[in-house]
Amino acid sequence: MSAILTLNAGSSSLKFGVYQVAEEPGLLLKGQVENLGPLARMKLQGGEAWDIGPADHAVALHEILKAIEPALDGRVVMGVGHRIVHGGKTYGDPLILTEEILAKLRTLEPLAPLHQPHNLAAVYAAQKEFPESVQIACFDTSFHRHHPFVNDTYALPYKYYEQGVRRYGFHGLSYDYITSCLRRDWPELYKGRVVVAHLGNGASMCAIKGGQSVSSTMGFSALDGLPMGTRCGQLDPGVILYFMAQGMDANEISNMLYNDSGLKGLSGISHDMRTLLESEDPHAAQAIDYYVFRIKRELGALSTVMGGLDGLVFSGGIGEHAAPIRARVVGEMEFMGLSLNAEANAAGETRIGTGPVEVLVIPTDEERVIARAVADALLV
Amino acid sequence: MSAILTLNAGSSSLKFGVYQVAEEPGLLLKGQVENLGPLARMKLQGGEAWDIGPADHAVALHEILKAIEPALDGRVVMGVGHRIVHGGKTYGDPLILTEEILAKLRTLEPLAPLHQPHNLAAVYAAQKEFPESVQIACFDTSFHRHHPFVNDTYALPYKYYEQGVRRYGFHGLSYDYITSCLRRDWPELYKGRVVVAHLGNGASMCAIKGGQSVSSTMGFSALDGLPMGTRCGQLDPGVILYFMAQGMDANEISNMLYNDSGLKGLSGISHDMRTLLESEDPHAAQAIDYYVFRIKRELGALSTVMGGLDGLVFSGGIGEHAAPIRARVVGEMEFMGLSLNAEANAAGETRIGTGPVEVLVIPTDEERVIARAVADALLV
Repeated sequence: MSAILTLNAGSSSLKFGVYQVAEEPGLLLKGQVENLGPLARMKLQGGEAWDIGPADHAVALHEILKAIEPALDGRVVMGVGHRIVHGGKTYGDPLILTEEILAKLRTLEPLAPLHQPHNLAAVYAAQKEFPESVQIACFDTSFHRHHPFVNDTYALPYKYYEQGVRRYGFHGLSYDYITSCLRRDWPELYKGRVVVAHLGNGASMCAIKGGQSVSSTMGFSALDGLPMGTRCGQLDPGVILYFMAQGMDANEISNMLYNDSGLKGLSGISHDMRTLLESEDPHAAQAIDYYVFRIKRELGALSTVMGGLDGLVFSGGIGEHAAPIRARVVGEMEFMGLSLNAEANAAGETRIGTGPVEVLVIPTDEERVIARAVADALLV
Repeated sequence: MSAILTLNAGSSSLKFGVYQVAEEPGLLLKGQVENLGPLARMKLQGGEAWDIGPADHAVALHEILKAIEPALDGRVVMGVGHRIVHGGKTYGDPLILTEEILAKLRTLEPLAPLHQPHNLAAVYAAQKEFPESVQIACFDTSFHRHHPFVNDTYALPYKYYEQGVRRYGFHGLSYDYITSCLRRDWPELYKGRVVVAHLGNGASMCAIKGGQSVSSTMGFSALDGLPMGTRCGQLDPGVILYFMAQGMDANEISNMLYNDSGLKGLSGISHDMRTLLESEDPHAAQAIDYYVFRIKRELGALSTVMGGLDGLVFSGGIGEHAAPIRARVVGEMEFMGLSLNAEANAAGETRIGTGPVEVLVIPTDEERVIARAVADALLV
């Protein structure tokens, strides 16, 4: 009997899933090591959790192997699937990682400095633990690879486009999963024009037409578009020139835009939408107002890109659980055919719209997309 | 008999207008000194033009005074009106320039490094030439001053909002003029929700509801939003971090984003839309595709901001003269109620739409807005 392990490595967490090998892989266990650093913590699906002390990605993986042993129940891990944030210009579909490919992926680290090195650290750790198993890369950029040129470029000197300064888009594994749900459960909508709002700690929106990504609010980096927990989202380039003129260096600016901006920066209270929704501080309300406003603005922009809108899908932690946010995004959008069934929304039902444009809530599952890719490779 | 002089100083030009003082000032002459530097050139409305040799703003103003003498015909210049790009957090309505105010406006130079110093240079030159006349500042930011918070902030640490890192918006004198035309000639539309596309060498779009600006595609600087002749428009902040990581300094990045990007950078051919429209080079076509695409994207976003759209107005050099661009912007926008009367568009008529959303072409006149402000001050 054989199994699949999926690894999704962030800067401070390592998410994992264990699956029975099958065309549609069977979930055995999911979980994550959170808070990587001196006080890391293991958390399994279902709620069980414990402290594991100091841990980097390698230590975390070792702890994961111990934690999944009962679930594996003697199964051998034949393939490890990795979320790799950046595939650059070259890589699209999932592929088996070789030393040559890993070397090329390392050269992309400057394009995603806060994600790519951690993704690759997980690969190295897994290679050590599972020298016999195949390592599969699943790229967060791959879903967006066939954007038309106007959705792929910036208006910079053209040589930078050729050098790879492009609108890659991210959260591709999530959009891939949502699209697979639409194809299965909403085949008419799948053929149409859909905006998916992936609203998690990171957040982006994607315009999907006939199952293909045509535009995303994220571009070159994971900073642009919607404001996020700690990331700024859309920002005037002149603001960065201003910070430079004030004497800030690249590290200070990068640290501020990635870690101290977004909901956290604007509210001064928390990066966590739950905390902000419970707060009575006017700064919390302002940060939420801004968050909702930017989503609405992008919803209009992405609909225009497709020449209209047939469906809106909410996903990600906030998209799946924050009914008041969903209600506000859909509010005053009747002119585009959107309206809300308030009861269905409050109850967290899948179908929450009442207008001609379908409005859905679909929980995402990036791990399953990775597991499917590994199964594909193993079952060839 | 007395007259008004208006001055609109850019980095490489000084535009001027001479008006008879009246509640609605009477135009006597308009023109500009172009190509400031070693080979400047005077150009009057109607087409007369001549070389004036080396000229900075002071020399240009001196040449302007000689050129307008016949039109002044003995009238005394009682007031000089200036376009000042940046009024910062403090200044909104037109005001009489004092030394104290000028000192404050100088402190805003870092917010608009490529415009504000030239605007103030024109004020100093005019103070010397007309020590007895009143100098009036008209701010390009003023039309946007009452944006709601969500349209005024970025998701940065809140202290930066308080320090003035805000979405000021520009081209306010142009939007003010267009709005005054709507109030006079299209009173129903004036009360509604209008997007104005100011498409000149600089370009921005503004959402105007009931005559008030609620959102603009430009924010803190004159770089953001639409791609322009040489400016980049919307850009992922991660791209700038990438350039910094590649060793570029602030001057190099600023110079590239302001002077070598936009239509010029993307096409590699020209910043001039006329040249690109005539070119058969595929890079010219790509640059135009991108330009149109970004306008459509922002049209959707700004409509959503207002909860719908009643009218679209084209203005500025490209907006007024490039019928193919207007046709492409309005194309495939039926879902928002926009459609084009192709003949009226090709003929350059004012009213070019056929759908429920009005589509208009209105030539802008920033000089007139300045002249009106000066007349208001003189006729108190």
